[in-house]
Amino acid sequence: MNSPLVIAVDCSTTAAKAIVVDRTGREVGAGSYALDTATPAPHWFEQHAPDWWTATDHAVRRALADVDDLASVAAICVTHQRESFVCLDSDDEPVRPAMLWMDGRAHAEARRYGTDRVELLCGKPADITPGLYKLLWLRDHEPETLSRSAHIADVHTYLVHAMTGRWTSSTASVDPLALVDQATGDYSEELLELAGVRRDQLPDLVPTGTPLGPLRAEVADGWGLGPDVAVIAGTGDGQTAGLGLGVTDPGSAYLVLGTAVVIGSETTAYLPARAYRSMISAMPGQTTVETFSSSGTYLSTWFRQRFGDPDLGGAPDPALERDAAELPIGSERLLTLPYWNAAQTPHWDSQASGVTVGWQGCHTRAHFYRSLLEGIAFELRSQLDGLEAARGERVEVLRAMGGGARSALWTQILADVFDRPLEVRAAGEVSALGAAAIALTAIGEYASLPEAAAALASTDAVVEPRPWAAKAYADLRTVYTRLYSTTRDLLHDLHDLSLGDQR
Amino acid sequence: MNSPLVIAVDCSTTAAKAIVVDRTGREVGAGSYALDTATPAPHWFEQHAPDWWTATDHAVRRALADVDDLASVAAICVTHQRESFVCLDSDDEPVRPAMLWMDGRAHAEARRYGTDRVELLCGKPADITPGLYKLLWLRDHEPETLSRSAHIADVHTYLVHAMTGRWTSSTASVDPLALVDQATGDYSEELLELAGVRRDQLPDLVPTGTPLGPLRAEVADGWGLGPDVAVIAGTGDGQTAGLGLGVTDPGSAYLVLGTAVVIGSETTAYLPARAYRSMISAMPGQTTVETFSSSGTYLSTWFRQRFGDPDLGGAPDPALERDAAELPIGSERLLTLPYWNAAQTPHWDSQASGVTVGWQGCHTRAHFYRSLLEGIAFELRSQLDGLEAARGERVEVLRAMGGGARSALWTQILADVFDRPLEVRAAGEVSALGAAAIALTAIGEYASLPEAAAALASTDAVVEPRPWAAKAYADLRTVYTRLYSTTRDLLHDLHDLSLGDQR
Repeated sequence: MNSPLVIAVDCSTTAAKAIVVDRTGREVGAGSYALDTATPAPHWFEQHAPDWWTATDHAVRRALADVDDLASVAAICVTHQRESFVCLDSDDEPVRPAMLWMDGRAHAEARRYGTDRVELLCGKPADITPGLYKLLWLRDHEPETLSRSAHIADVHTYLVHAMTGRWTSSTASVDPLALVDQATGDYSEELLELAGVRRDQLPDLVPTGTPLGPLRAEVADGWGLGPDVAVIAGTGDGQTAGLGLGVTDPGSAYLVLGTAVVIGSETTAYLPARAYRSMISAMPGQTTVETFSSSGTYLSTWFRQRFGDPDLGGAPDPALERDAAELPIGSERLLTLPYWNAAQTPHWDSQASGVTVGWQGCHTRAHFYRSLLEGIAFELRSQLDGLEAARGERVEVLRAMGGGARSALWTQILADVFDRPLEVRAAGEVSALGAAAIALTAIGEYASLPEAAAALASTDAVVEPRPWAAKAYADLRTVYTRLYSTTRDLLHDLHDLSLGDQR
Repeated sequence: MNSPLVIAVDCSTTAAKAIVVDRTGREVGAGSYALDTATPAPHWFEQHAPDWWTATDHAVRRALADVDDLASVAAICVTHQRESFVCLDSDDEPVRPAMLWMDGRAHAEARRYGTDRVELLCGKPADITPGLYKLLWLRDHEPETLSRSAHIADVHTYLVHAMTGRWTSSTASVDPLALVDQATGDYSEELLELAGVRRDQLPDLVPTGTPLGPLRAEVADGWGLGPDVAVIAGTGDGQTAGLGLGVTDPGSAYLVLGTAVVIGSETTAYLPARAYRSMISAMPGQTTVETFSSSGTYLSTWFRQRFGDPDLGGAPDPALERDAAELPIGSERLLTLPYWNAAQTPHWDSQASGVTVGWQGCHTRAHFYRSLLEGIAFELRSQLDGLEAARGERVEVLRAMGGGARSALWTQILADVFDRPLEVRAAGEVSALGAAAIALTAIGEYASLPEAAAALASTDAVVEPRPWAAKAYADLRTVYTRLYSTTRDLLHDLHDLSLGDQR
């Protein structure tokens, strides 16, 4: 008898990606379909929510085209970009375009409404990202949008409805809207009232891994599948990245080296702290904690686009990597605070900006580039230290994925700065693999999600820290850790300068 | 009857340049000859002193080749790189290579011996530059060099001896050795004793403009000149640059936009202050005061070499200048402290380094470049403010020369930051022209040196400040002026990190 197969979809910001895997995680099909993002104003980012389904539908069709044994497909589970949501009218049509996680328009609302009380309830530092502040922006700027909304749907909710016809979702998927009380795991009446949103506008909540019913016949037929394919409640792409790396307990952490960088781990209780954001975990009774910095490969790409070989147009540059790799630890005393997109965990300072100190005539392009990579690594180390201190448990195993994991230079810098081995997963759809683990557990192939994640996860290499480099980086961190506090007031004043009426 | 002609030589760090001019300053001949510099160790800079004469001899021969009426040549005057000196044995042969002004080996000596008392006597902030600290380095590291020296000769002294056979020089030319008491205008016994140097090892001192005797017959013959060409005591190239720009009183200032940048003006008394270095003036009874920053075109060249179009190899890049010129005042809030070569006036901080604050994703190569030019301008404005405050008199007229004066972008930034018109002299041998003014005065063509300087000086353009830009720069300076004090301790700690034993 054949192993059952499951479909796992990652509906991310840039594309829907689908894989079909067997119980061992072996990929038997894969497909993807791009998603467009509109920027109607600076720092505004929107998508057409029906594209989420169109892209998912196409990606799954492409993945299934590789599969001989369609009858073995038993379940589908979706992971997704977090915080993004759409408002739908009673005909399930968008009232306005969906607002994405990185949409910056709710800047003022985050400052105004992001009280300690709100942060404690939702577990998330006040920032442009959580859905709550965008809902408040709608309440204050487009009140008719909310009053016309029959449904407010994050990406998971939207896709589950497309597949099952039900308005039910996983608590973990809805949680980034910042309307769920971390202590109870249910919607917070206080947060709903603040946002001006009614419970009936939101999906019913079930735990990750709950079967939500079979695929609608129309969808199953279109995909050439039978009538009993179960739709399984998933969770957001950060958490599934953790699952895809086998990170399911407090002793390990996942490191997402994408455009933004994230360190995530688990706690066995809700421990509110500004050192991370707390989220409903895919594992019952646990909380997922994550640090966040928007300066990840964003910054190395910025450098290559602005200062790099113009023929490469910002693409990875092996010559630049090689030159930077040959430099000594600390880029000959050039130190960078990587706040090009303001500061996130733990400062959440929208008036901050980037700083470079130590410039000397010996410095080259490669020094500046290496200094950026080192600066991000220092920032991540500070975040890991903060996470460990807040929850009182050390991370022993660090597993990295994302585009940055393909840089031998950067992963070595990270291992040295963390002074811990870094297990690297350089390729593959890691988040989708985490969703597959959820589906395989739900259909009974594994006794528990941690067991499934451990079975499916793999890493390509282990980068060991070099003791002499770790020591030198520890020395540099004594200066790095003072860089923000030293320059903060100056950066704020620079940010706030009017600079007159320039002609 | 023909106007008398004078030869003026600028024996600078990189070349000897000679011009022959008539009483109006019209150039009738010009020639130059390059000088080599050796760097036997990092931050060590040496020349072979006999090259000073070889280069001068060749440059003068080339200049005179253009002159029809050699019989009209009445005098020669030399200006020169300052602080550099050579130790000569009793056969007038170098005991060791000459140490140049920018030679950094006397770092520790400047810190150890540069007391307030020493600074007050010599009028110069303790630094690697003044000859005193290099003499102290010789005393402590090569005592036999000093004991074997019959003569210690700066460039002017060396060339006067080559031309006249006399060991006599101008006080202003010898002054950069920092052995002259600014209050008396004679050697300071206290400084001689500190340096371990005897008065008989040093030249006799006369005022700038004093005839030192005729050219030696051998030299005059070689150049095709008659027996009565007077050698006139000159002064260093900073002061002659001022003369060549017509700067002879406290109301005006010269701005040298070279590899290093200098603001120079005059005071009518010796007013010791850390806001400038004080020097014996070419004008009797006056003191020349100068600020100094080693980050001038050094920094814009560094940028173009390291971050610029590789095809240009660091040469001026019109496209980069144009892109930078189109950016708003303040480079969209990117602010640079230009201490790539440590800090000079007024901080004299060898542990300082460069800082850039305000980095955002919108910034490009052109932003960084413009920010460097703006940073140097802010630094110069701070130095001008300090100079004016210390002596209690405002500079009304600013005249700029040097390579940087050819950048329309930079001169506009400077005029806006100074909020004063900038008179620009973009080409010509300005320092040599100042030496010509000294010679023409000495032979009676002008009643005084200020009169000669006023007659010979000319500027090519006046760059007016733009009020709206001046206002925006004034706003930015409120942040700039805090940049050093805010980051100083951090920069010192970064400088002092050992960073272990890196493999």
